[in-house]
Parts: sequence; structure tokens; C-alpha cells
Amino acid sequence: MDRGRLEAFTDGVFAVAITLLALDLSVAGPGHGSLVNQLSQHWPQFVAYLISFLTIGIIWVNHHALVRNIARVDRVLLFLNLFLLLFVVLIPFATATMASYLAQPGHDSHVAMALYAGVFEGMAITFSALFAWTLKEGRTHRPVPPQARRTAAGRFVAGNVPYLVAIGVAFVSPAVSLGLIGAVALYYVFENTPVISPADAVPETRPRT
Amino acid sequence: MDRGRLEAFTDGVFAVAITLLALDLSVAGPGHGSLVNQLSQHWPQFVAYLISFLTIGIIWVNHHALVRNIARVDRVLLFLNLFLLLFVVLIPFATATMASYLAQPGHDSHVAMALYAGVFEGMAITFSALFAWTLKEGRTHRPVPPQARRTAAGRFVAGNVPYLVAIGVAFVSPAVSLGLIGAVALYYVFENTPVISPADAVPETRPRT
Amino acid sequence: MDRGRLEAFTDGVFAVAITLLALDLSVAGPGHGSLVNQLSQHWPQFVAYLISFLTIGIIWVNHHALVRNIARVDRVLLFLNLFLLLFVVLIPFATATMASYLAQPGHDSHVAMALYAGVFEGMAITFSALFAWTLKEGRTHRPVPPQARRTAAGRFVAGNVPYLVAIGVAFVSPAVSLGLIGAVALYYVFENTPVISPADAVPETRPRT
Amino acid sequence: MDRGRLEAFTDGVFAVAITLLALDLSVAGPGHGSLVNQLSQHWPQFVAYLISFLTIGIIWVNHHALVRNIARVDRVLLFLNLFLLLFVVLIPFATATMASYLAQPGHDSHVAMALYAGVFEGMAITFSALFAWTLKEGRTHRPVPPQARRTAAGRFVAGNVPYLVAIGVAFVSPAVSLGLIGAVALYYVFENTPVISPADAVPETRPRT
Repeated sequence: MDRGRLEAFTDGVFAVAITLLALDLSVAGPGHGSLVNQLSQHWPQFVAYLISFLTIGIIWVNHHALVRNIARVDRVLLFLNLFLLLFVVLIPFATATMASYLAQPGHDSHVAMALYAGVFEGMAITFSALFAWTLKEGRTHRPVPPQARRTAAGRFVAGNVPYLVAIGVAFVSPAVSLGLIGAVALYYVFENTPVISPADAVPETRPRT
Repeated sequence: MDRGRLEAFTDGVFAVAITLLALDLSVAGPGHGSLVNQLSQHWPQFVAYLISFLTIGIIWVNHHALVRNIARVDRVLLFLNLFLLLFVVLIPFATATMASYLAQPGHDSHVAMALYAGVFEGMAITFSALFAWTLKEGRTHRPVPPQARRTAAGRFVAGNVPYLVAIGVAFVSPAVSLGLIGAVALYYVFENTPVISPADAVPETRPRT
Repeated sequence: MDRGRLEAFTDGVFAVAITLLALDLSVAGPGHGSLVNQLSQHWPQFVAYLISFLTIGIIWVNHHALVRNIARVDRVLLFLNLFLLLFVVLIPFATATMASYLAQPGHDSHVAMALYAGVFEGMAITFSALFAWTLKEGRTHRPVPPQARRTAAGRFVAGNVPYLVAIGVAFVSPAVSLGLIGAVALYYVFENTPVISPADAVPETRPRT
Repeated sequence: MDRGRLEAFTDGVFAVAITLLALDLSVAGPGHGSLVNQLSQHWPQFVAYLISFLTIGIIWVNHHALVRNIARVDRVLLFLNLFLLLFVVLIPFATATMASYLAQPGHDSHVAMALYAGVFEGMAITFSALFAWTLKEGRTHRPVPPQARRTAAGRFVAGNVPYLVAIGVAFVSPAVSLGLIGAVALYYVFENTPVISPADAVPETRPRT
């Protein structure tokens, strides 16, 4: 089966989700204080937008790297991918909720940050499940050697741990938790290696389409 | 005619509809009770999101399986597909309406659930019409043998009956009706055979793109 | 230049616009009268949804037929297409405005219906401009013979006149104007020939991708 | 690596962003004064819609021209593209904010217009970074000769300067600033050469896909 349609649908969901993030950025308009004040009071929305945008973007880049090495698309892959998208689609909601509580001290800001980190953890887990599926024999264009598997598995753990930690830290300090999630995003933007990708761990031996 | 653009447009509509589902998940924000309470009171929204997301996802997977066996795209197919999309696009509205009445006992919750099940039934009927169209001679890449037709027709009935039953049950118990629709979604996620697909009912005999 | 990306972007805009139509279908929810009453009072929204959905769908089908015969994509075509999309994107706004005034007798319902018909006329004109562009020598895969040009030009006029008439009729009777626009949509759904398509007016002589 | 998916995701984001522009066009509906008055009072929304739509469209056309000459897609390109999209996604927010303050004299209208021009400048800078990346040896299908580089660099400056000027002018006269941004859009629609594109600056020597 062709993987083109899997990519088209996935790209569509990522594109809509990443664009809906900005729906939360509206200001109340004239008659609600000076615009500079309104924008300043919305700083959590802008920070949240930036972090969520980069994180969705990184997962999209990694999804890209993962899927292009897949030789066979079956129903299990389609549904694993669907579960990944289920969490991606939740990100605008989790981002808006987190941002609206971020500047409010108190228990609710802890819960909102844990929810935010939890949706990212759900995304990381389902992405890891997709990755694990591709490691099975005959599912990739090029075989993945044992060394690359170990590296990839290490990265798999590395990609999941920060969000788990962020969930816990959220109940102590939402700001530190958000900083951690933002640091993960920046790390992967400037780091030149993909989080989880058997395709990139192996030297390319033959041209592909 | 190429079927690529049919798929691209369809994937786009599915992607937007499935992402808009999450627009109904917003909470009122600070000053409206504790966040945990707000999230708890929104449980119908989360349950409805999960069931609608999986159902749209399943129809997308089946659409994928159906269309990739189609050899010829004509105007009739394009309009049958358009009628399917007409119901897919209604799902976020039906989901939001159902969710807002689910926890409210009374006649309205019955009407809201019947509306929800009715939109899914409309989707199932138009999908069946698409399927019936593909069974005509010369419209598929590989011929569909009589045995596969009978199996597929059986599945066609099987795919429509639950939603019809759910419409009736909605007027007795919305909760049971929703449970039925959710059970159908879970069944198709874990069942490894596509609902309706002549392509998968026939052993593959020659490579396709 | 490849026409794939022109189609991908266009399909994306059509898909989002057609799905956003349903955003106007929300009901106020519990505590605002019985759900059946609320849905009944929203009948203009449902009628408007149906007509706008079918009209966008028809233009998409015709766009599909038009573009697949195009051999060369230049900047002029890209911008003509962009102007078509400018009107397509306005349809959800025009639909929501028209629907909110349809059941209110008075001058505003006339203006709202004229606005609705006007956006469709804008779409028809820009589509016609796209079509006229493709008739120039060397821009199509297969040459368009004079007879087919005349037929196509006749259809071009036929596709524009109803919306012009609907704008005028809107100031006499919005209901009749809407009926006319709806009749055009139904006509093209059940009529088996594309509105405007040089590609389909010519017998196919060689296989295409 | 294939550039198809980069284009698909980018086209999806552009398509959603350009369609969301129209979400700001809603009128209050019956009971809020005559519809003609409501539409008249919303003139800043319509002007802003038109200018933002054309500007996003132009950047999409230029992105198209830029990417089709790219021979190799690496992570740096993917992230540069992601930063471009980060600003594209902000355009509906910046447009709505600018439009709501445009007709209100005072300091806030200056800030709103500077924000609007600033988002466009962000888009122009990230687009220029994408362009600079493609000029490195071996990244394009056809080599870009020194003369074409100079022309392209000139255009790069030309594409960034107007938005920088518009930011400054916004604090003197928002109307003049908006006029400048609109003039840039109209210039590129009617000018037949792409803003920044090494591909179009070089005579085509061999067929591409």
C-alpha cells in the first residue's frame, strides 16, 4: 500500500492543529485598556504559542523522517498514527488552558501545566509506538542494524522522559515545568539529529523516490 | 482521471473535521471554579471527542482502502464522495450538540443523541453508496469475485445497522446509545479487517503504485 | 512547472472553507428552549449549509476538470487561481450572514441575500477567467477545437447568469433568490456534464497520468 | 529526501491560515443596526482581509518558485521553513488586531499597525533565510550564476525594506503604513517576476518533474 495518503492526512491534521494554536492569541480590542497592556497581559499566550508551535513542528519533522523509511503500510500502522494524531489535535486545547492559568498562582496553574505536559507525553508515547512498529523485520526500506536500534531506543527513552518529569514538576513549579518543555523544543531545533529515526541512523545505500 | 486529487481533497476535509472536534473542549478559565471541577464537568465533551475522533479515523482508513482499488474516477463518484463529506463535516456540530446535552436528563438529551447517531448513519449510508458504485464492472483495478461481493455486502449491512439501532435506542437511553456507537468504534480499531473493502477481500495479484 | 502544488494548495483552501461552513450550525445549548425548537429555528442555517456545501463542491469538481487539462502553470494562472480562492474563502462568512437574516423580513434580508449571491458571482467570474486563460494556444495537454470552445463559452455564460439574476431577485424576494441558487446547485449535481471544462468536451486521445 | 512532504505541510498551513482570515469578517446580526451600516463599519476588516490574503498568496507563490529548485531537503531547511510558517500562522491574529484598531484614532492604532507590519517583516526575514540557504553550492537542481545571485540578493533587500519602513511609518500614520503594505501586495500581483527566486532567474536547461 502507498504511504502517500497516510502522509497527506497526517500533514493535514498537523497543519490545522498548528494553525489553530494562533486562535488563542486574540485580544479584547478597543475599550479594554491600552493595546500594549493587553498584549503584555497575554504574554503566557505568546510563550505557549511559541513552545507548542515548535514542539508540533519537531514531531512533524520526526514523523517525516520516520515514515519515509517505511516500506509497508498496514492497518496497525494507520491506527497507531491515528492515536498519535488524537494527541496532536488536543494540543491547541491544552495550550489554551495552560496559558489561561499560567499567570494565576495557585493549584489550578499546577493542574493546567500537568495537563499540558500530559498531552505532550501522550504524543511522545504514541510516536514511540509508531517507531517500535517500524523496527519489526521487513517494515523498512533499509534494514536497521542492531547498533542503530540501540541508539534509536536510547533516543526513544530520551524523548519520553522530559515530559514525564515535566508532569511531576508541574505540581511543584509550573514555570520550571514550562521551561523544561521549552528547553526540549529548543534542543531539538538546534540539535542536528532527529529524535527517533531509524532511517537517519543508517547510511543511505540506494536512492529512493 | 487520476484519483490523487479526490484523495487530497477528501483527506483535507477529514483532517479539518477531525481537528475541529477539539474546538469544543475549551474550559471557561480562571474564576469559574477549580480547573479539576471544570474538566470533570466536561467529561461528556471528552468522551464525545474520543468516540467521534475514532469514528472519523475509521471511516478515513476504510475510505483509503476503498479508493485505492478504484481504477476510474467519474463525476458520479466525485459527487457520491461529496455527499459522504457533507456528513463528515457535520460531525463536529453533532458531537458538540450531543455532548452539551449528554449530562442533562430529559427529552433533549434523547433528541441530541438521535441527531448524533443520525449523522453517523448518514455517513455510513453515503459510504455504502460509494462502495456499491465501486462494485460495478470495470471500476476496480482487480475484479471483485462473487464470494467477496457477498462478504462485502454483509459487511455493508453490518456497518449500517448499529447506527440505525443507536438512533432508536437514543429515545430510550442516550447512554446506551452512546455506548453502542463507542463499541462500534472500538470494534473496528481492534478488528484487523476493514469494514467494507473489495480491495482487501481479494488476494493481490499484481503490484500497484 | 508542475501543477501538483497548485492543486494541493487549492484543495486545502476548498477543504477548510467547506468544513468551516459547519461552524455556523451551533445551537445555544441547554436552557435556551427545547432542542427541537432550537434546531427548527435554525432551519435557515441548515438550508444555507446544504446549498453552500454543494456549490463549493461543484466548483471543486469543475476546478479539478479544468486544471487536469492544463499543460503549463505560470504566475498569471497562480494569481487567477488566488482570486478564485479569495471568493471561496468568503463563502462561510456570506453564508452565515445570509442565514442569520433569511428568516427576518425586511430590507436587511435583501442585502444579505444579495451579498451571498454576489460572492458566488465573484467565484463564477474568477473561475471563468481561469477557464479563459486555459483556452490560449499551448496551455492545454490536448488542443481545444473551435466547436468545443463555443460549447464551453456557452457554458461559461450559463454559469455566470444565474448568480447575476439572483443578485437582482434578492431585492425583490430573498427566498426566490435562494431557491434559484439552490436549483443551480442541484442541476449541476444531477447533470452529468461539467459546467466549464474544455478537457471533457474533447474526446480523449492519449493516456494521461 | 523528497520535498513533496515539505510542500504538502506548508501548503496545508498556508491554506488554513488564509482561510482563517475570513473568520474575522462576521457581523453581529439582526438587532444591531442595519446590515449595510454594519458592513460599512467593518470596512477595516474587509481591507485588511484583502491585503493579508494577497500577501499570504504572494508568499505562497514565491515559496512555490523557491522550493521547486531545491535538490536536497535537510533538517535545517525544514526548521527554516517552520520559522516562516510560525509568522504565517500569526497573520490572522495580526490582521484581526490591526483591523479592530484601524478606525480608532490614537496610540493603539499605531501599535496595532506596527504589530501587523512586524509580523509581515518576520515572514519576509524567514523567507529570506530560506532563500539564502538555497544559494549554497549543490542545494539547487540548476546552479545559480553570480549575476543571478546579485539580482536575487537585490530582490531580497527589496522584499524586506517596505515592511521595515511600514513599521516605522505606523507610528506616524497607520493609514499610510497600511497603504504601503497594500501597494507592495498589488505590485507583486501585477509584476510578472517573482520576488526572490533563483530558479526563475536562470534559463531552464533541462526538464524537471
